[in-house]
Amino acid sequence: MALPAEFGLIARHFAPLAGPGALALEDDAALLDPPPGRTLVLAADAMVAGVHYLPDDPPETLGRKLLRVNLSDLAAMGAVPLAYLMTTALPRGVAQDWIAGFAAGLAADQREFGITLLGGDTVATQGPACLSLTILGHVAPGAALRRAGARPGDEVWVSGSIGDGALGLLALTGRLPPDDHLAGRYRLPQPRIALGQCLVGLARAAMDVSDGLVQDLGHLARAAGCAAEIGAAAVPLSAPARAALAADADLLPRILTGGDDYELVFAAAPADAPRIRAAAAAAGVAATRIGRFLPGAGVRVLDAAGNPLALPAGGWSHF
Amino acid sequence: MALPAEFGLIARHFAPLAGPGALALEDDAALLDPPPGRTLVLAADAMVAGVHYLPDDPPETLGRKLLRVNLSDLAAMGAVPLAYLMTTALPRGVAQDWIAGFAAGLAADQREFGITLLGGDTVATQGPACLSLTILGHVAPGAALRRAGARPGDEVWVSGSIGDGALGLLALTGRLPPDDHLAGRYRLPQPRIALGQCLVGLARAAMDVSDGLVQDLGHLARAAGCAAEIGAAAVPLSAPARAALAADADLLPRILTGGDDYELVFAAAPADAPRIRAAAAAAGVAATRIGRFLPGAGVRVLDAAGNPLALPAGGWSHF
Repeated sequence: MALPAEFGLIARHFAPLAGPGALALEDDAALLDPPPGRTLVLAADAMVAGVHYLPDDPPETLGRKLLRVNLSDLAAMGAVPLAYLMTTALPRGVAQDWIAGFAAGLAADQREFGITLLGGDTVATQGPACLSLTILGHVAPGAALRRAGARPGDEVWVSGSIGDGALGLLALTGRLPPDDHLAGRYRLPQPRIALGQCLVGLARAAMDVSDGLVQDLGHLARAAGCAAEIGAAAVPLSAPARAALAADADLLPRILTGGDDYELVFAAAPADAPRIRAAAAAAGVAATRIGRFLPGAGVRVLDAAGNPLALPAGGWSHF
Repeated sequence: MALPAEFGLIARHFAPLAGPGALALEDDAALLDPPPGRTLVLAADAMVAGVHYLPDDPPETLGRKLLRVNLSDLAAMGAVPLAYLMTTALPRGVAQDWIAGFAAGLAADQREFGITLLGGDTVATQGPACLSLTILGHVAPGAALRRAGARPGDEVWVSGSIGDGALGLLALTGRLPPDDHLAGRYRLPQPRIALGQCLVGLARAAMDVSDGLVQDLGHLARAAGCAAEIGAAAVPLSAPARAALAADADLLPRILTGGDDYELVFAAAPADAPRIRAAAAAAGVAATRIGRFLPGAGVRVLDAAGNPLALPAGGWSHF
């Protein structure tokens, strides 16, 4: 008796991704002996074609992006990546080449981040592809970075550069000139795993920037029961983003609220600035002070003259 | 600054489901201290509207079914349920009442099975709803039931009754007369959690029946490197399924290959039959011997005269 086609698909494309405990994806569930004495860190993010990515995004980068948006959540908690489960709902006529590319992207990032596939499900949908991934990592007990914990007087830091992902989407959809750097940042975010681990015991609060810097900083401020104020000119931009902004100053709101950054935004005591710089250097990523936390509520973005900028709605919303 | 609508949706409907370690669904990830000295058991299953359920299925039973198809995987491994993560991709115009019903179903089953929500993601899709759930459970090290392990001479057992889910789908779609029992079995499977735990150290191999008895028994046989032979008349049927089959003998293949049973099929040594019966009695579910494992390969289903039945393709396939 022949097996249904999905078994061949799983055996061909996904079984090679399976690691210890995955039981070759042939049992009903996976087995995992968690690292002794560590707290597990778990997150799940979904991506839908046409919403979270462009239908013609290369499947290789798509597989990697699916992993990386989840790894970014681990980075925000200061966790060490461990393994993942994944469910894919794919259009019935999906090409084998597409799946092969998607799996090749996963394989590349498994090697890069030291993780393996534990299990999952492969089903068909009559709609756009819908990809869901659950990531597992671990931290020392009590050590996880949290969103709550910033205090008035703490400084606001952000890793890497902001706005590239949002501008990359514009570049890929013809609303900005083509730009490989920006497109690459949209398609292949860099989860700040090493930095997150270096910030354990150092940052007072942290989260990843996925829905736009202003909105996500608002989460840190709200969790701390205080306000945050940043200078627009202090927000670190890549050279292509600076060039785009120089050509069109109206891009600033998009940069500050557009999302898809997958950088870390975090709070630290002013006296810890040298240690933050050292941690960032050790992690091989830039860290930039962009403002501070204050008594009050909400997020203010100041222009070069110190006047609050009026920004449109705070970030990406699905509903 | 107002938060996007999805935050209200999550706070209203999903945050009440969050348990210890979920950090009120307000951080980037959840924290879980795994039960010391236990092996974690993890599975992920997805359900798509129009594929895995009927678009007009009540949201309450849908939430419960999403949990239960995953719990059934834990049952198949003999695991104790612990917690879950969930991603939901929902059509943009989804009614709040629908989400409230869906969450109420999850809440009911959280109580029934002693689990809580750890985290997840809520996104929009332009296609049919796509629901993905990752379940976590635990077993004693080395104790998990596995698909491999049956030996020639072992007996084939199945829990509960077979075919109700597949016939329920027919009843719900007008291809059979309406039937509350069958419809209920399609919409609300009964994961055999207690039985699975009672079978640890007793069953030589086990899995859950989700893609049809014949196909899934084929997995057990293949994993064991042997054949399986069952008697069609020995397969346990509910009274409504027996009545439907009496009215239309052509329903037999649907019963044996239709899927959506979420029963356990397992192997045990003949001498262990009394212990199996005692385990099933302790778990409060029927267990029925339907055949045996033999040298060779494949699955044979015999009719009352002992002749092999010709069955159509072995089970549900997505691709």
